[in-house]
Amino acid sequence: MIDLRSDTVTKPTEAMRKAAYQAEVGDDVYGEDPTINRLEELAAEKLGKEAALFVTSGTQGNQIAVLTHCKPADEVIMEANAHIFVYEGAAMSALAGIQPKTIDGDRGAMDPKQVASAIRPEDIHFPETGLISLENTHNKAGGTVVPLENMKAIKKVANQYKIPVHLDGARIFNAAVAMNEPVHKIAEQVDTVQFCLSKGLGAPVGSILAGPKEFIERARKWRKRLGGGLRQAGMIAAPGIIALNEMPNRLQEDHNHAKRLAEGLGNIDGIEIESEVETNMVLVSVENLGLTSEQFIEKLEKAGIKSGSYGTHSVRLVTNYDVSKEDIETVISKVNQLFK
Amino acid sequence: MIDLRSDTVTKPTEAMRKAAYQAEVGDDVYGEDPTINRLEELAAEKLGKEAALFVTSGTQGNQIAVLTHCKPADEVIMEANAHIFVYEGAAMSALAGIQPKTIDGDRGAMDPKQVASAIRPEDIHFPETGLISLENTHNKAGGTVVPLENMKAIKKVANQYKIPVHLDGARIFNAAVAMNEPVHKIAEQVDTVQFCLSKGLGAPVGSILAGPKEFIERARKWRKRLGGGLRQAGMIAAPGIIALNEMPNRLQEDHNHAKRLAEGLGNIDGIEIESEVETNMVLVSVENLGLTSEQFIEKLEKAGIKSGSYGTHSVRLVTNYDVSKEDIETVISKVNQLFK
Amino acid sequence: MIDLRSDTVTKPTEAMRKAAYQAEVGDDVYGEDPTINRLEELAAEKLGKEAALFVTSGTQGNQIAVLTHCKPADEVIMEANAHIFVYEGAAMSALAGIQPKTIDGDRGAMDPKQVASAIRPEDIHFPETGLISLENTHNKAGGTVVPLENMKAIKKVANQYKIPVHLDGARIFNAAVAMNEPVHKIAEQVDTVQFCLSKGLGAPVGSILAGPKEFIERARKWRKRLGGGLRQAGMIAAPGIIALNEMPNRLQEDHNHAKRLAEGLGNIDGIEIESEVETNMVLVSVENLGLTSEQFIEKLEKAGIKSGSYGTHSVRLVTNYDVSKEDIETVISKVNQLFK
Amino acid sequence: MIDLRSDTVTKPTEAMRKAAYQAEVGDDVYGEDPTINRLEELAAEKLGKEAALFVTSGTQGNQIAVLTHCKPADEVIMEANAHIFVYEGAAMSALAGIQPKTIDGDRGAMDPKQVASAIRPEDIHFPETGLISLENTHNKAGGTVVPLENMKAIKKVANQYKIPVHLDGARIFNAAVAMNEPVHKIAEQVDTVQFCLSKGLGAPVGSILAGPKEFIERARKWRKRLGGGLRQAGMIAAPGIIALNEMPNRLQEDHNHAKRLAEGLGNIDGIEIESEVETNMVLVSVENLGLTSEQFIEKLEKAGIKSGSYGTHSVRLVTNYDVSKEDIETVISKVNQLFK
Repeated sequence: MIDLRSDTVTKPTEAMRKAAYQAEVGDDVYGEDPTINRLEELAAEKLGKEAALFVTSGTQGNQIAVLTHCKPADEVIMEANAHIFVYEGAAMSALAGIQPKTIDGDRGAMDPKQVASAIRPEDIHFPETGLISLENTHNKAGGTVVPLENMKAIKKVANQYKIPVHLDGARIFNAAVAMNEPVHKIAEQVDTVQFCLSKGLGAPVGSILAGPKEFIERARKWRKRLGGGLRQAGMIAAPGIIALNEMPNRLQEDHNHAKRLAEGLGNIDGIEIESEVETNMVLVSVENLGLTSEQFIEKLEKAGIKSGSYGTHSVRLVTNYDVSKEDIETVISKVNQLFK
Repeated sequence: MIDLRSDTVTKPTEAMRKAAYQAEVGDDVYGEDPTINRLEELAAEKLGKEAALFVTSGTQGNQIAVLTHCKPADEVIMEANAHIFVYEGAAMSALAGIQPKTIDGDRGAMDPKQVASAIRPEDIHFPETGLISLENTHNKAGGTVVPLENMKAIKKVANQYKIPVHLDGARIFNAAVAMNEPVHKIAEQVDTVQFCLSKGLGAPVGSILAGPKEFIERARKWRKRLGGGLRQAGMIAAPGIIALNEMPNRLQEDHNHAKRLAEGLGNIDGIEIESEVETNMVLVSVENLGLTSEQFIEKLEKAGIKSGSYGTHSVRLVTNYDVSKEDIETVISKVNQLFK
Repeated sequence: MIDLRSDTVTKPTEAMRKAAYQAEVGDDVYGEDPTINRLEELAAEKLGKEAALFVTSGTQGNQIAVLTHCKPADEVIMEANAHIFVYEGAAMSALAGIQPKTIDGDRGAMDPKQVASAIRPEDIHFPETGLISLENTHNKAGGTVVPLENMKAIKKVANQYKIPVHLDGARIFNAAVAMNEPVHKIAEQVDTVQFCLSKGLGAPVGSILAGPKEFIERARKWRKRLGGGLRQAGMIAAPGIIALNEMPNRLQEDHNHAKRLAEGLGNIDGIEIESEVETNMVLVSVENLGLTSEQFIEKLEKAGIKSGSYGTHSVRLVTNYDVSKEDIETVISKVNQLFK
Repeated sequence: MIDLRSDTVTKPTEAMRKAAYQAEVGDDVYGEDPTINRLEELAAEKLGKEAALFVTSGTQGNQIAVLTHCKPADEVIMEANAHIFVYEGAAMSALAGIQPKTIDGDRGAMDPKQVASAIRPEDIHFPETGLISLENTHNKAGGTVVPLENMKAIKKVANQYKIPVHLDGARIFNAAVAMNEPVHKIAEQVDTVQFCLSKGLGAPVGSILAGPKEFIERARKWRKRLGGGLRQAGMIAAPGIIALNEMPNRLQEDHNHAKRLAEGLGNIDGIEIESEVETNMVLVSVENLGLTSEQFIEKLEKAGIKSGSYGTHSVRLVTNYDVSKEDIETVISKVNQLFK
């Protein structure tokens, strides 16, 4: 099976397993797990933030960010297809009492003017705008890169109104590689950032929430309330350190694979590439094949390829560490065979 | 002063005041206020619903509807400019833990196909769609009438997925008059409906939430939690009964006034009518006058006319019981003088 | 029927009805109802607070206080039988995300030492103590008066830890009369206070939340979210002004009636007075009559007397404006006849 | 250092580390991690429940239980010193909108009669009782065992009122060993149960929530919202399987150590054993030494012994896998030296 459903399916490397085996551990609720502490310091440093907090998932990182930035009945501005809006089970409203205000983006990027006009003036009828939330790379738009200039322009608006900005940077390292910029260049456009050690970086479990020290201290308490306070967490932090140190460099490979895959599939009659490939995702429309996404996915599965539905006729394929250059060629040739 | 800011500013009539003075009362928390009981029965009957509940405002009626229909982390589908989304202080998310999913409407009406595709399939990442909320007439769109056919089509979609439909019918009597249909014809398209006794109907205070008996019983408990359990409420129910019995007939007058006002203002260079007038609201753009809405409103205020901002260059004028035919002509002539 | 279920059942006086009839009104959402404004100023002045807000019930006043003082996951210290804990449908936790920490009181008064030790130190496992809530008179304890000295001692503890204190003073005027102190003497022991214009003061509807100006401004927004933003509310504020100006003086009468009632009933074999009468409530145990409270209440009802259950064998009788001295004698004599 | 602060500080064994190293993994969000699946089946089987869910902490398991059992504004009955009330940051109220109703227990056990009378009858003023939550062993009472008979009696009350019962069984295996009963005998007294793989069982991370299949499915969605949906979680499930299979048998040793420790410390003048030792905890009062708990703890720390504060003069010592028989003797002799 070649698994292109997501980069979340990557298995830990031998080095990661070994690191887990040997990890120096302590009780992280007491702040005594040296490996977690090392990971958090390393992550803060790479992101250019004062402090960082290990969390068990990207969803947890985003939710804690909202809980820590906002008070109930605040409004949070976000792109209409943001992960936090579409894929986090409405947790934001359920846990933090927050109303999302969505803006339709262009390849995941919101127009700063629209952001500005979405900010609420003071009025007895209106919520207060408590946060602007960005996503980079933008998953639902097809792994697209939100340009630094766009982020800067939005941060400028946010500063004017004294509203904090959070970045769902689940795949921020993919964005950094695609931009050819150090990751802290992206992170410095925002107040807080979440990124995943799993996904393209290949760690088995975990994400990081980074930001000002005072913010992270309050976030730590919300993590405890959500049940994210772990004990000997070093065993999962150790693979995370490897993910953070060694894996970003290899993401270019995934991007190359995705581009090759898009090129190969785009040549097949009836398959349309929906979104120009910038990182590790390929979105294809199979409408002209006369298939629903579910039917297409089933045919590929029988041919040994896993992919995921992204709409009625839309299918997502994600390159990742466990998919080689040869696998990509196999996929292209098998899909060719299926639909020629 | 001619006050066109809203139909909420209408003062109670002499008959309403007298009714309050003479009202038979009891303790409504014990269900013993005969006037409230009479109002609730009357309202249920007019709406064609099993039961009704007096609430202190339209916002309270809508919020109780959401609290009673939904569970936390549900998603509620609504038009992007719905009152419940724009003007209720994000209460829906703060009190009920609900995530709004907004759809851009056409004159306040959502496309039933878009509603259908906004309903969430079962998936570990997704909230459940707990409610579809409509608004008729639609305030922010300019007092527009959402056609019965549109409501029916959306209810059909809702039934297919077993999702309840709520109507914010704050101005449902304006819609009924504009449609030339009895109000229950509109209400029967939905499971629950809220409408205001204040606004065009002129009562000093209060709204009604109507729906199935079992629903209203649970709603009653949420009303208590929000602090809407009143004691000798008959004193405000009595004017409400007059509002409900006698005032709907006169709304046609407000609509005629609004049409005349739009005609008069539309002839002034630089003033654009933004939305065809269907009921008692006139939305004008003053951009071509080179004015912001705030500047325009100030000029009118000095001339003895009150109006309200509805955007940077957008101004709303609402006809109501306290504004006569002569007042309308005065407004037209004064605005003419100001900007000729 | 002589109705002793509660002082909430009192009907508005002729003067109150007339005041409603003649009330000068405006749209209170715009802050333009002169009668509401007058009531709020008057209430603030009487309580010795900067500002006051009309709310539709005591529950609404208490809930808005909690929502405005606290953030979710705060803990609020209160007496174990406080109205806000027992009788407000867990709204505090549902709406504000607050955890109540209850302390068993002595006649409704908490031991300041116990309050001090209930305040949470900083720890990753602990909520923060966000508020201390008092109640005076204390309903469930039997309309008991919490001594000023006790309130002062608790406020001293609160100040030490910088925790605000709220008073559920639904019946604060009863406390003031019983203490023979002006009401502001009680109110000055706390940061915010809620009291009812209905109940013993006899207004048909409404309560007041008073406190610092900045607090009341934020409270106003929470009131809107709960649906307590009214339109021509002057019609219920006008009776409220009479309640506030003229009715406190007559509460002594209710207290005298309650004492006489307790004396009369206490002489009946099998009826025990559960709590020394200080204000307008009489709690009796009917256990030694071999009756449950429900059975006792039914017997009284048949004899033309309404009373309320306060536990398996506990019955509450509340004197009020609509119950005369003669009524009290009638009650005593009828109960005598029933159980002699 | 001999660390007696908690059994949470235990380090994973060599076998656990090796199991992590070799763990077969998959993406658990897709339900494809075979090791997690194996652990969940094993846990369900041992507990005698239909299904089980891996969660990242005991707090997460308890919170998900409340979120899944209850709706906002429900009341949950629990012992006054329950972990979920004292140590989970008021998460229950903040996340699930639940009001706790606490009952003072006897060695952690609530009187079934008091439970029965705490259940709310139907009344517009009252919340509904949505859950009864037990804890066994009871941490704050000193690791005490709540007798099976007590659990049965409470479950009988709960059944009568159709209220579910949840067990915070963080240390249920300690209870089972102390009772000399299989763990499912305890679990069968309740509808759902949470227990920890960390703590006495020594796994580095994780807990289990077990119950009916339909319940666990809904719980899985709440876990996702809290950010507990992990990817290649097999690496922490593998040590968990060892914890579950091999470690319960050794808990008797911890209990023996605790008894010996209590005996040794109890002989020291000025040290009082506060609660008869039943499992792995020793609570001592140091008041008669003229010390606060913090001062006592500091003295022990300088002597190489870590312990934890449980009140102003109360100190908790917890035996665990990393503390040997010799360590216990060392502790006794060192404390003897310090205070003789």
